Amino acid sequence: MSHWYEDAAIVPDEDIRAAALQRQDSLTKPKGSLGQLEKVAVQLAANQHSNTPVVDKPLIAIFAGDHGVTTEGVSAYPQSVTAEMIRNFSRGGAAISVLAKGLGAEFTVVNVGTVYALEDLPNVQDRRVGSGTQNMCVTEAMDVEQCEAALAVGRDIIDEAGDINVFIGGEMGIGNTTSAAALAVAHTRLSATAMVGRGTGISDQVLAKKSAVVTRALSKHLAQMKNGLEVLRRIGGFEIAALAGAYIRAAQKGIVVLVDGYICTAAAMSAVKINPSIRPWLFFSHCSAEPGHGRLLTKLEAEPLLQLDMRLGEGSGAALALPILQAACHLHNQMASFDEAGVSRGND
Amino acid sequence: MSHWYEDAAIVPDEDIRAAALQRQDSLTKPKGSLGQLEKVAVQLAANQHSNTPVVDKPLIAIFAGDHGVTTEGVSAYPQSVTAEMIRNFSRGGAAISVLAKGLGAEFTVVNVGTVYALEDLPNVQDRRVGSGTQNMCVTEAMDVEQCEAALAVGRDIIDEAGDINVFIGGEMGIGNTTSAAALAVAHTRLSATAMVGRGTGISDQVLAKKSAVVTRALSKHLAQMKNGLEVLRRIGGFEIAALAGAYIRAAQKGIVVLVDGYICTAAAMSAVKINPSIRPWLFFSHCSAEPGHGRLLTKLEAEPLLQLDMRLGEGSGAALALPILQAACHLHNQMASFDEAGVSRGND
Repeated sequence: MSHWYEDAAIVPDEDIRAAALQRQDSLTKPKGSLGQLEKVAVQLAANQHSNTPVVDKPLIAIFAGDHGVTTEGVSAYPQSVTAEMIRNFSRGGAAISVLAKGLGAEFTVVNVGTVYALEDLPNVQDRRVGSGTQNMCVTEAMDVEQCEAALAVGRDIIDEAGDINVFIGGEMGIGNTTSAAALAVAHTRLSATAMVGRGTGISDQVLAKKSAVVTRALSKHLAQMKNGLEVLRRIGGFEIAALAGAYIRAAQKGIVVLVDGYICTAAAMSAVKINPSIRPWLFFSHCSAEPGHGRLLTKLEAEPLLQLDMRLGEGSGAALALPILQAACHLHNQMASFDEAGVSRGND
Repeated sequence: MSHWYEDAAIVPDEDIRAAALQRQDSLTKPKGSLGQLEKVAVQLAANQHSNTPVVDKPLIAIFAGDHGVTTEGVSAYPQSVTAEMIRNFSRGGAAISVLAKGLGAEFTVVNVGTVYALEDLPNVQDRRVGSGTQNMCVTEAMDVEQCEAALAVGRDIIDEAGDINVFIGGEMGIGNTTSAAALAVAHTRLSATAMVGRGTGISDQVLAKKSAVVTRALSKHLAQMKNGLEVLRRIGGFEIAALAGAYIRAAQKGIVVLVDGYICTAAAMSAVKINPSIRPWLFFSHCSAEPGHGRLLTKLEAEPLLQLDMRLGEGSGAALALPILQAACHLHNQMASFDEAGVSRGND
């Protein structure tokens, strides 16, 4: 039986890529002088099958979920903060709320599975697939139905969105850097200490505990983790699975994905393992202060746009990078060529 | 006799800095998790003597000038390109024209000294102080009157601007990375080879020649370069002096400066040497692909916001960084505190 998440993504057009490369070299600037912006514009053109790529209609969706592994004492914050922050997103007081407003983005918060149900809140959708995940040190974080349901939540958010051409996923879930680190270890085979960081700001002691927790979870599940889906199910989280589902669906529909920080990158890695055809649609916004993030980006051969020493999550780094993606498009589409402008070419 | 460019800049308010630091730690995010954005917001608050800093009214001014040193064969482009690009700026076809439009910025192009006078052009101001500089390998690039006049052009552009709170300077001048490299060597005492790069894209052979040219210029002028103004006059350029004048005046008027790439950073270094009180007003937008730029930023103890492998100039990197500065302000001003949002604090 085939699953929706295995369907192929839209394939970039190689003729349009070649034309975009040629156009970049014809514009009134030294060849290559726009650096990463040139690469981004060319990839966007190929993806969108368009000589004039655009990323002007963003959806920012924040997926939230609780993590059973918090019982191991891996976070500086109590689990109640996941729900408290959902209320803060709803009221506009969180970083991503402020950034989404500044970008004029469509903005929604999706509760994929807090421990307790929440009251009705503006801009918050209740799509809980469970009351938090199970503790991955003890059992699988999700059962098969929950993992499928969480992936489908992400898919549905993309399917139900308005007229969008770029998707930013964010996340909130106390304990989710531990899950992200476990996913990173599973997919890179690097050590837990290489992949575990301070998350919201834990002490040396808690950091050591967090590494040990990741090592225990991995040793418990490693033999059964035959594919990307099983890795995600056993050591992921509801919001991480929803992100992976959203990334896959976006790529299937030809919507550009701007990936945020460590947790989103772990979700993106999971999504690529489940469906490698989506990789060209993933643009990586930043390299965070979490040490594992850079290593995971390297494994994905990603070239992040920003390095601002951020470690907040919520999609905040991706929101900051969106204007750069948009500028890359504007430059590609609007600059004059040497011939149009009557500017002499160099010897480069 | 005292000169206008020696007048003190507006002094940051230390009480407001302390309040801004406290506010950052009260906002609903792990302490420090917004990385460089927190530092930027705090510095902006202190500079502007305001608990709610703003950089929403930008002026982008491009200063253009020709360089006598081009006769040494240091560029991949003919000198005529300076004037040709001024026309391209005017018509909206250059990278910075496109970016300025996207930002809704006030935009002007200032001809500080092309070799030949240009026809009247929309958005271009003719403020030529000479027909290009002299070749710094042979004599001083500017005489005393020209250098003072070029500094004053920058001052006047700030004085004549509308209601602005952030200034982005850009530059155009075939040969000006050679001048920037010479300034960088003079101010860091590093070698010419450490400071000379490929500029618009020169060959290995021309690169070696460019290093030799910088070395010759330095050895000719070093003994006479008693202060920042003399360094600027002997090995700078009209557009570099105008940038330095604009940076100084902006700081004197309490206008935030967002410095662009290598040439602008060399101008900023010159400005700081002439008037050290302006340093807190300088925000550094990016580290370019020119190898000397990173070294000069280090000397200035600058923490650039972007590293996108760009090397175009024109103010393009600063234009890309402006939304990040603006986001830092929005976050500082609009995020909820833990108390306001009813979010539990962590143990950090």
